[in-house]
Amino acid sequence: MSANPFAANVTRPTIALAMGDPAGVGSELTAKLLCLDEVRAAANIVVFGDRRILEEGAKIAGVALDISYVAPDSEFDATGRPVFVDLGHLSPLDVKRGEATAVGGAYALENFRRALTMAHEGKADAVCFTPFNKKAMRYVYPGYDDEIRFISEVIGFRGHAREFNVLENLWNARVTSHIPLSEVASAITAEGILSELTLTDRTLRNAGFDNPRIAVAALNPHAGDGGNFGKEEIDVIEPAVQTGIDSGFNVSGPYPADTVFIRAKNGAFDAVLTMYHDQGQIAMKLMGFDRGVTLMGGLPFPVCTPAHGTAYDIAGRGIANIGASREAILLAARMALKKAE
Amino acid sequence: MSANPFAANVTRPTIALAMGDPAGVGSELTAKLLCLDEVRAAANIVVFGDRRILEEGAKIAGVALDISYVAPDSEFDATGRPVFVDLGHLSPLDVKRGEATAVGGAYALENFRRALTMAHEGKADAVCFTPFNKKAMRYVYPGYDDEIRFISEVIGFRGHAREFNVLENLWNARVTSHIPLSEVASAITAEGILSELTLTDRTLRNAGFDNPRIAVAALNPHAGDGGNFGKEEIDVIEPAVQTGIDSGFNVSGPYPADTVFIRAKNGAFDAVLTMYHDQGQIAMKLMGFDRGVTLMGGLPFPVCTPAHGTAYDIAGRGIANIGASREAILLAARMALKKAE
Repeated sequence: MSANPFAANVTRPTIALAMGDPAGVGSELTAKLLCLDEVRAAANIVVFGDRRILEEGAKIAGVALDISYVAPDSEFDATGRPVFVDLGHLSPLDVKRGEATAVGGAYALENFRRALTMAHEGKADAVCFTPFNKKAMRYVYPGYDDEIRFISEVIGFRGHAREFNVLENLWNARVTSHIPLSEVASAITAEGILSELTLTDRTLRNAGFDNPRIAVAALNPHAGDGGNFGKEEIDVIEPAVQTGIDSGFNVSGPYPADTVFIRAKNGAFDAVLTMYHDQGQIAMKLMGFDRGVTLMGGLPFPVCTPAHGTAYDIAGRGIANIGASREAILLAARMALKKAE
Repeated sequence: MSANPFAANVTRPTIALAMGDPAGVGSELTAKLLCLDEVRAAANIVVFGDRRILEEGAKIAGVALDISYVAPDSEFDATGRPVFVDLGHLSPLDVKRGEATAVGGAYALENFRRALTMAHEGKADAVCFTPFNKKAMRYVYPGYDDEIRFISEVIGFRGHAREFNVLENLWNARVTSHIPLSEVASAITAEGILSELTLTDRTLRNAGFDNPRIAVAALNPHAGDGGNFGKEEIDVIEPAVQTGIDSGFNVSGPYPADTVFIRAKNGAFDAVLTMYHDQGQIAMKLMGFDRGVTLMGGLPFPVCTPAHGTAYDIAGRGIANIGASREAILLAARMALKKAE
């Protein structure tokens, strides 16, 4: 690693921040973020959006912006104040607050594409975005399935990436995700578990965990009760965990899904690898994952976003909580720093 | 209903209480229960066990018992102090604390059988028990699958009964339970959902809810996302909920499983009907179901027990929390009262 590990600065990573859906709380959150000393100290921030939308967000949030504005594709130095790249592509007059629209989707998509491209070109070390509305994005880009697929398309990435949910110090990854429950059991393979385990270990190390303690959840009730309620634990999951241990991972399980998160919450594990979507989401959301961060791991650079959505119901009222967005930026900065080490 | 609605008393229901596994916290909990004014005021209590085991429990719990002891099959009046039916079938010298043994299993089984028989004969209005250890019970009765099956055998019951989990004012019932996850989707039928819905409504009414608000959970992630991740919501669950509404139940759904319990916790519903075991158990246990009550509903009389287990690790130390056991007795008493009205 050279003396200048970061794209733009010797001491701080550079984060490209895409403004999200303009009809939700994203604009006020972006404005608030740019005013947080903690955020400004942790990273050089380059925001993509429309200046008028940001300034309306600042007005709603009740904050005074102290940033530089630049034109798209111009040269700039982001090591001082945050830099706002004004794409001039959306007037607040065209935003219908609280509604998913094509113009809103186009706005978020273009900001995201620009931020990803900046990181892909090595000019930013991580990407963050304030909440998207997928329905709005699909109006203009029907193929928008999820962030990972879109990012992979934009930067031409063909490796294995995966969404992680992070709440305080507890991470959740999953072996299967958006598939019918009826297909989950047959989709669970030792190879799949080991692949996710490897990615989970690597991603947590990238986030600063020395030897991450990973718990693997069982698939069946009572972890199958010795084979009485399903044999996947015996046939597939236990052997995969054993292979993981043999490969040097700090992994254990399978644990009954209805108690593993209680143990993790109490500090026994750094991450829980779940077998299917709701197994982790029921627990994470009950524990307050709304305050947490979604991280796309396995990509050439970290991509983070607050776990909550656009919150159309409270948009424009200046009451949106900045906590999750701040955590998203700080996690991205931490991971970029760690990578540079 | 006559002027004497209860088996043994005009104003209070009679509860037959079976002492559970003697190697765990059951004995100290039984002793503590018998000393609670609230419990003594709510019901006439008839306990089945061995006096020596109970007295050791009282010593551990640090309580002075104020009860009557009677021989098995003798006549007694339970309207005053609690009555202890001393079966004289286990010496504390034969108990291995913290271990599941055949003698321990035999003890709990016999107490339970006696309590059930008393209620079956109309001499008690409800049955409660302190925690069992199923492994111990299977040593002496290999066919001990679960409480409902055993109760049905003992009292010759052939109707539809089901376990409910109750935490404060939130109830959880499920359409499928101890089956492999791979079999869940095909086991979900409109008939099954309606059958559980009917039982849930009836049981909550029996517990004092006037018009219980029942939420039905979805099966697939994001409730199937309009059919993208599974069609059971569209093909099976939605029609079943609609039939439930048409039948006059206060039911709604299907709701995504990863947010329905947050809404229920915030007071939107009295009960959540889940499609499979872990869907409800992950949520209930995270919310502290250990402090809750398991109720067998649909039987000719209510059967309640604390939701937590034998707690072998803290048995004999006098630190076991009485909260869940107290709730179990009070719920049984409330349901017996309601039935008598």
